Amino acid sequence: MPPSFRFEAVGVVRSPFKTPEDVPVERNSTSLGFDDVRGEIEVDPAFADGLKDIDGFSHLFVLFAFDRAAEAKLLEKPPFDDQVRGIFATRSPRRPNALGLTIVKLEGREGRVLRVSGLDMIDGTPVLDIKPYTDRDRKDALRTGWLAKYERR
Amino acid sequence: MPPSFRFEAVGVVRSPFKTPEDVPVERNSTSLGFDDVRGEIEVDPAFADGLKDIDGFSHLFVLFAFDRAAEAKLLEKPPFDDQVRGIFATRSPRRPNALGLTIVKLEGREGRVLRVSGLDMIDGTPVLDIKPYTDRDRKDALRTGWLAKYERR
Repeated sequence: MPPSFRFEAVGVVRSPFKTPEDVPVERNSTSLGFDDVRGEIEVDPAFADGLKDIDGFSHLFVLFAFDRAAEAKLLEKPPFDDQVRGIFATRSPRRPNALGLTIVKLEGREGRVLRVSGLDMIDGTPVLDIKPYTDRDRKDALRTGWLAKYERR
Repeated sequence: MPPSFRFEAVGVVRSPFKTPEDVPVERNSTSLGFDDVRGEIEVDPAFADGLKDIDGFSHLFVLFAFDRAAEAKLLEKPPFDDQVRGIFATRSPRRPNALGLTIVKLEGREGRVLRVSGLDMIDGTPVLDIKPYTDRDRKDALRTGWLAKYERR
């Protein structure tokens, strides 16, 4: 038996996308992506003290639970591709562990509510963690495999 | 009660750092960081099919469990800083949810073993997910708050 780990939501996403079907996945193949999609990360009062100093960062990693994902798959055809890909080579929600990762831009903060842009999550998505995006997270000389032909640099 | 989520390890980290004390945290304030630290991500056989197409990517997000972290805190003084910071403004392991995130460079692959560099995890760390790093994860015009004075650009 592999070890397992339990995590509790520390907050919730407020998004204009109300259902999985609302998310325009075709935006993944544009340079804009979801940059103009605004919403909020509302942190639970019990964890609000952990937000100290966060205002200084322009970008944040948001780790979340894909709580409305369909069953996990190891191979899947991405919606904007024509071939089946390994799930670890995609950002699909249908993963062995339904963990999501989105980098948002921090537009402002009112107490325990972070106003952000770059949202691709559904409204009500449980937030598991928030981390600062640092200079060392900006990687150079990328190769992006099957995605390269869909990405506009 | 906030919703909670259970995740199982899909693999394990093989690292030169055998204990938490082995990790040279002062490297976080250098431009090299952990770039020259090599190791492996060994994916469990049950999930190996999910690695299809991963070879095309130069960089990968590795999501993992900080399984040997001390108790969680909301405020902590980073080891190379002189002030207490909010935990969501740090990458400390002592988080409400002990979830870690490291971006590694994929140096090669032998079956279900990924040879990587850029490791800052401890040997035996349970891997929860692997995701491709894409062009859109490379953010511009960063502000990095309290970390800025420690980062060498």
